[in-house]
Amino acid sequence: MKPALAGVKALTFDVFGTVVDWRGSIAREVRAFAAEKKLRVNAVKFADAWRSGYRPAMNRVASGELPWTKIDDLHRIILDEVLVKFRVSAFNDTEKAELNRVWHRLKPWPDTLRGLKRLKKNFTISTLSNGNVALLNNMAKNAGLPWDLILSAEIFHHYKPEPEVYLGAADMLGLQPGEVMMVAAHKDDLRAAARQGLRTALVLRPNEYGKGRHPDLSPDPAFDINAADFNDLAAQLGA
Amino acid sequence: MKPALAGVKALTFDVFGTVVDWRGSIAREVRAFAAEKKLRVNAVKFADAWRSGYRPAMNRVASGELPWTKIDDLHRIILDEVLVKFRVSAFNDTEKAELNRVWHRLKPWPDTLRGLKRLKKNFTISTLSNGNVALLNNMAKNAGLPWDLILSAEIFHHYKPEPEVYLGAADMLGLQPGEVMMVAAHKDDLRAAARQGLRTALVLRPNEYGKGRHPDLSPDPAFDINAADFNDLAAQLGA
Repeated sequence: MKPALAGVKALTFDVFGTVVDWRGSIAREVRAFAAEKKLRVNAVKFADAWRSGYRPAMNRVASGELPWTKIDDLHRIILDEVLVKFRVSAFNDTEKAELNRVWHRLKPWPDTLRGLKRLKKNFTISTLSNGNVALLNNMAKNAGLPWDLILSAEIFHHYKPEPEVYLGAADMLGLQPGEVMMVAAHKDDLRAAARQGLRTALVLRPNEYGKGRHPDLSPDPAFDINAADFNDLAAQLGA
Repeated sequence: MKPALAGVKALTFDVFGTVVDWRGSIAREVRAFAAEKKLRVNAVKFADAWRSGYRPAMNRVASGELPWTKIDDLHRIILDEVLVKFRVSAFNDTEKAELNRVWHRLKPWPDTLRGLKRLKKNFTISTLSNGNVALLNNMAKNAGLPWDLILSAEIFHHYKPEPEVYLGAADMLGLQPGEVMMVAAHKDDLRAAARQGLRTALVLRPNEYGKGRHPDLSPDPAFDINAADFNDLAAQLGA
């Protein structure tokens, strides 16, 4: 382990895309919902459309256009729009609520559980996600994710990449920012964490957006660690 | 299980006295600190004095006399007063800080771990303590407490028994108040939770204040459950 990382006591994890495979999980459920209703829907495009509404929706909160709104409620607003765009009108309100909860049932990447269990022995492991607390807790119960605690944008009433989230997490953990390492598959999240003094680990998730469709996967020496998956992260941290 | 309790999905636990034995744990550490310095201190009385400053200190926050202040910092303010009262001047600042962290190292009651593990299979189990998040996380890591998540007065910037803590916990868990059960050894905590619509379980901790020195231990039918310990609670909840 690099000597500079000896002071790291807690790892905070981005969740959507980093810990769990949102795209595969959503496409699978949308396909099942559609089959039940005998609808033709491109489930993967549906998942992509749903996810692509995420950042603009959070920006409406950050700009003050919307008051503080949980991701569950933002997901529902976006879902209603996506259903219109995909000309799906077969779902009643209860079914829409059930479909919206798919985000509570996202499945981990194959290395996630084993990697987290290794890391938990040496570090505090926490979520640091824009997902709300109930979503993250239900996901953890469902998938067996062994978090020590759940930290969320909901606690700070700010969404990543706003500084309040990273600094708020360090403060609540009783640590200096440099004692906390942000783990994410997304460089913008890590760069925002680094600007607040956190340590950073990039974990590559080449299939987050589907095979062959991925953004920049090049390692970046600006991050403290570049890892292939959570087991590689554990190995690089001596856990 | 009582039919009315079938809707309970999460259990939120008071911690000091209910999950861990603050008095025994503190007295043990104070005794060790004193022995090292060759001081004569009544360690049990020291623990009681420290704890008795807790409610008045939180009241100073609730009244607005102090701004929001973490329990770690309130504990330190009280510790400084108790050291003066006990005429102990042998500790330097580093030692005082280390002693103050005893609250992060409190030991569970003998039934705590097994009971929590049973309950975790059927319910979300969370702290709902006036202790700050770092304190509760360090305690859990140290003692192996298997919380699903850590909820604390620190998240809501209100101390129990203020309503914001109970209602805030239910909201963050994505549940109605009646789907959450507060578990505590203290009747005032449970009565405050019940006033906000939460379910309640009293767990008797006859030795919290020392053998033979205990407040009202009579069961109360106003609570949904009266339990002898966490295993009895699990049994009564069918877990």
